[in-house]
Amino acid sequence: MPTRSLLLSRRDIDFLLYDWLDVQSLTSRKRFAEHARETFDAVLDVCADLAEEKFAPHNKKNDTDEPEIADGEVRLNPEVKPALDALAETGLLAATADAEVGGLQLPQVIQTACAAWFAAANIATWSYAMLTIANANLLLEHGSAKQVEMFVRPMLEGRFHGTMCLSEPQAGSSLADISTRAEPRDDGTYRIFGNKMWISGGDHELGENIVHLVLAKIPGGPPGVKGISLFLVPKYLVAEDGSLADRNDVVVAGLNHKMGYRGTVNTLLNFGEGAHTPSGQAGAVGYLVGEPHRGLASMFHMMNEARVGVGMGATALGYTGYLKSLAYARDRTQGRLPAAKDPASPPVALTAHADVRRMLLAQKSFVEGSLALILFCGKLLDDQRTAETEAERARISLLLDVLTPIAKSWPSQWCLHANDLAIQIHGGYGYTREYDVEQHYRDNRLNPIHEGTHGIQAIDLLGRKTTIANGAALGALEALIRSTVDRSRTAGTEAAELGAELDGALTRLIDVTRRLHAEPDTNLKLANASVYLEAAGHIVLAWIWLEQFLAAGTGDDDLRRGKRHTARYFYRYELPRTRPQLDLLATLDDTTVDLDPDWL
Amino acid sequence: MPTRSLLLSRRDIDFLLYDWLDVQSLTSRKRFAEHARETFDAVLDVCADLAEEKFAPHNKKNDTDEPEIADGEVRLNPEVKPALDALAETGLLAATADAEVGGLQLPQVIQTACAAWFAAANIATWSYAMLTIANANLLLEHGSAKQVEMFVRPMLEGRFHGTMCLSEPQAGSSLADISTRAEPRDDGTYRIFGNKMWISGGDHELGENIVHLVLAKIPGGPPGVKGISLFLVPKYLVAEDGSLADRNDVVVAGLNHKMGYRGTVNTLLNFGEGAHTPSGQAGAVGYLVGEPHRGLASMFHMMNEARVGVGMGATALGYTGYLKSLAYARDRTQGRLPAAKDPASPPVALTAHADVRRMLLAQKSFVEGSLALILFCGKLLDDQRTAETEAERARISLLLDVLTPIAKSWPSQWCLHANDLAIQIHGGYGYTREYDVEQHYRDNRLNPIHEGTHGIQAIDLLGRKTTIANGAALGALEALIRSTVDRSRTAGTEAAELGAELDGALTRLIDVTRRLHAEPDTNLKLANASVYLEAAGHIVLAWIWLEQFLAAGTGDDDLRRGKRHTARYFYRYELPRTRPQLDLLATLDDTTVDLDPDWL
Repeated sequence: MPTRSLLLSRRDIDFLLYDWLDVQSLTSRKRFAEHARETFDAVLDVCADLAEEKFAPHNKKNDTDEPEIADGEVRLNPEVKPALDALAETGLLAATADAEVGGLQLPQVIQTACAAWFAAANIATWSYAMLTIANANLLLEHGSAKQVEMFVRPMLEGRFHGTMCLSEPQAGSSLADISTRAEPRDDGTYRIFGNKMWISGGDHELGENIVHLVLAKIPGGPPGVKGISLFLVPKYLVAEDGSLADRNDVVVAGLNHKMGYRGTVNTLLNFGEGAHTPSGQAGAVGYLVGEPHRGLASMFHMMNEARVGVGMGATALGYTGYLKSLAYARDRTQGRLPAAKDPASPPVALTAHADVRRMLLAQKSFVEGSLALILFCGKLLDDQRTAETEAERARISLLLDVLTPIAKSWPSQWCLHANDLAIQIHGGYGYTREYDVEQHYRDNRLNPIHEGTHGIQAIDLLGRKTTIANGAALGALEALIRSTVDRSRTAGTEAAELGAELDGALTRLIDVTRRLHAEPDTNLKLANASVYLEAAGHIVLAWIWLEQFLAAGTGDDDLRRGKRHTARYFYRYELPRTRPQLDLLATLDDTTVDLDPDWL
Repeated sequence: MPTRSLLLSRRDIDFLLYDWLDVQSLTSRKRFAEHARETFDAVLDVCADLAEEKFAPHNKKNDTDEPEIADGEVRLNPEVKPALDALAETGLLAATADAEVGGLQLPQVIQTACAAWFAAANIATWSYAMLTIANANLLLEHGSAKQVEMFVRPMLEGRFHGTMCLSEPQAGSSLADISTRAEPRDDGTYRIFGNKMWISGGDHELGENIVHLVLAKIPGGPPGVKGISLFLVPKYLVAEDGSLADRNDVVVAGLNHKMGYRGTVNTLLNFGEGAHTPSGQAGAVGYLVGEPHRGLASMFHMMNEARVGVGMGATALGYTGYLKSLAYARDRTQGRLPAAKDPASPPVALTAHADVRRMLLAQKSFVEGSLALILFCGKLLDDQRTAETEAERARISLLLDVLTPIAKSWPSQWCLHANDLAIQIHGGYGYTREYDVEQHYRDNRLNPIHEGTHGIQAIDLLGRKTTIANGAALGALEALIRSTVDRSRTAGTEAAELGAELDGALTRLIDVTRRLHAEPDTNLKLANASVYLEAAGHIVLAWIWLEQFLAAGTGDDDLRRGKRHTARYFYRYELPRTRPQLDLLATLDDTTVDLDPDWL
């Protein structure tokens, strides 16, 4: 067997992109007309190579040698900058951007596959690029022409980097309670005062400048989230000619020392505390992005992208852990099968043991399923932008609305579990830092927390996404899944059986959703939102696995046999988990509502 | 509310020991006649205080400042020895030992509760004591009078420490394949040659000597596990008068650097490689314990104790994480309830949010359920030793046989999950090393691996424990659970309903067990042993929660209301997980058996 990458499977990616998603057909659309499958392949080749050569080698060092503050500045490992510079040189920071701002106009789905290579190799180093891309995309959508010229172009070239500054020490998930304020000045700029917590990439010397996107309240605005505005606050002010001017009043006040994801510096930032007074006035200079009090809507654009990005990162960490545990299990011999009676018979490979196979199949179903979901979402983003009709684009938007919390939370939960299984397969060795898998597990544990916790995603799905447009988003998902079920009916006995299982689970989910939305007590309706999110996630992934089963057809190569067998695993071991979950939801269970916290 | 310990709940322990297990009644038995509830309480007080004062304060330092090798010796944090010395001074290293060897003849169940305090405070430091106690107990059971005199007494006094040396680098879970050899010498001693891996406490300077219990093969013996013998190999040889003589040929060859549990030094030991030649002959001097080729049986005595000890450690880590996340959730305000419309209303405590309550109830059900199970096993050990009749002692032994793999694996799985939820409740803060919960999670991740992995416990339960004595062990468990169900029928409507649920689940488990044992293909029968272990574990814990529901009676204090409500949580959210598991088992699912590893 040829040596395979232990980061991702290119064979799987090719299957998903071309055999399943038919990504090559995008090149018939005007936006992507300059491209062909050959350019997509070439881009994927470049990313795979760069990930192996420049990102993977310092992944462990990012974990052991944490960023630190020296002379008031954040110091990163010296390997981080060359890796990011090499990435910038490929032009791929502007992979999906318009040609007129220097972009390559590649499909998002290709960019997502590229991102997965870098995240699998070194998620901490990749995060600096990811944040910069997300920041630039937000400004391309909501910023002024001048902001694009002065800040976005340098970001797309890799000269500037970006952050997003939402949380505050006293208000983690609750943005309504942020207290950073933005005072207007006569020249149209603002002065920002406040503290921002959990800011990844909040300070470093990777480039010439850092562009912070900061949520703050303009005094006198409405209370809660309706009074939040969005500001661009650069670390260094930029003169009209693009040259760097004074240091702005944003300083790093401390670093958070995390369980994992250590190479991505995570900071507490102070704005406007007087460390620098560039304009002779107090406050950090900030520029309004978009309309006043509409900041959260603009930020949600970035947050939705970031949420799918979190799912992608979780997937990549799960995927590389799976491949590493598979390689270990193929190589390591240990014990004998239960039926073997002769103690002198030679030990067998770990892959011969049923329980190890179960752990490998489970991982495969989680990581390949997640990758398929994430690429599907990437393709939806392309369709949302380029589909032929307005109606089709609207349908796609609804699908993205309802799939985003699942694409964020499902991989974060189950690819973390995959990493847990990867450790277990390694036994004691997996628990040591000599192997990679324990770091993946620690890194991945962040994903159910940041960009909206699991519980926040759950309320988003059940409280908001399934209700918008009179339930049309959930309706779009239902129609999509039913159409796959329809196809399964004529694709052989086994496909039809899987389709019937999925059909039943989906019908149950829709019924339960109606029942929940009929409940007038909002607190009770949402009491088990997390259980709902998990059941919905497993049903969506069962759909993903039926899709892959159908795409594999009757092919008898290892990849297609593996896809079919993993679908079987998912329908036998995983989909049935949703039954007791849906039972609980159907009763409008009040266990948590009825609890008196003093009983705890 | 008075300040409560964040290690364990003494209120809960008192409820379990006295209201539920009726431990005070043990004092009517001859072995424990010197004791009374007052002495038990005093011992628990001492342990709780010592754990808070001497163990907890250096728990984080054990994590950050790992043991290291300096001048060929292992250096631990300087706080470890004073803590262990203080423990030794209480006499509690000999808590359960006979008075004639200096023991206190306390019940095992009291010792277990004590151990949980130390493990919750600092599992890494506690492990040195736990290993020493387990080692001493094995030698008390299987060693010669001279071995007890020369090695056990100093261990019980805290002057010597103990290890167990089973695994080897090439043979983790598969003891049949160990290659360490023991060559007999004319004087009745042996010379040991080989390498032992994953040896906790394998070297340090905590006391005067270290007593290694080593599995090795005497050349010419039978192959596999039937050729394994047990040897006592001291770090320093001991002269007839008890004074220390030459250094034996056991040297630390390297340290394993782990994800957690870092304060417990974990070593690769080389025996007989010529670093020291105390007798002028090659090989480490070893003394046979018990009969030749019967080493594994002796070691299993210690391993069963160690397995329940692993479950206890997992429980303690889960418990302290629960209490810390509860304290955080009570203190921290964040957001509003879904039904609250006014953004200017004050934020509510985290404990007001349904999803946080769900995570707290889940943790409570896992950690209090695990503690109840572990204490129940402790009480069984006392009954096994002191129950009135031979028949009763035999019944108890069977119960212990079948419960041991569950007592090891269930807390290791679910109290680890509790730690995961404790992080989630803390949000971003929980992911930082500033708080304790991420360390508990990392420490606890070892527990599903050591002392027999999850998969090994599963095969032990389904392949061995449920078959011994024609299924009498499982029969004893069934009878125990049915008797609780019977009591539930007359304990009010709600108790009867829970009892009926449990009865149904148990019947299903017994049916499935029969079906599996009827399968002639052993590999297929055991293919889903892990799923069986997990289903059986949840059913046993449902029994534990019904027991606690009944023990709480109609009491209207917070503790008893909390017990009843947590039982409700467990029956609504947890027990139903077993339904799809038992469905899968009933089909004799062959997904893993049918897999070709090339498809992965």
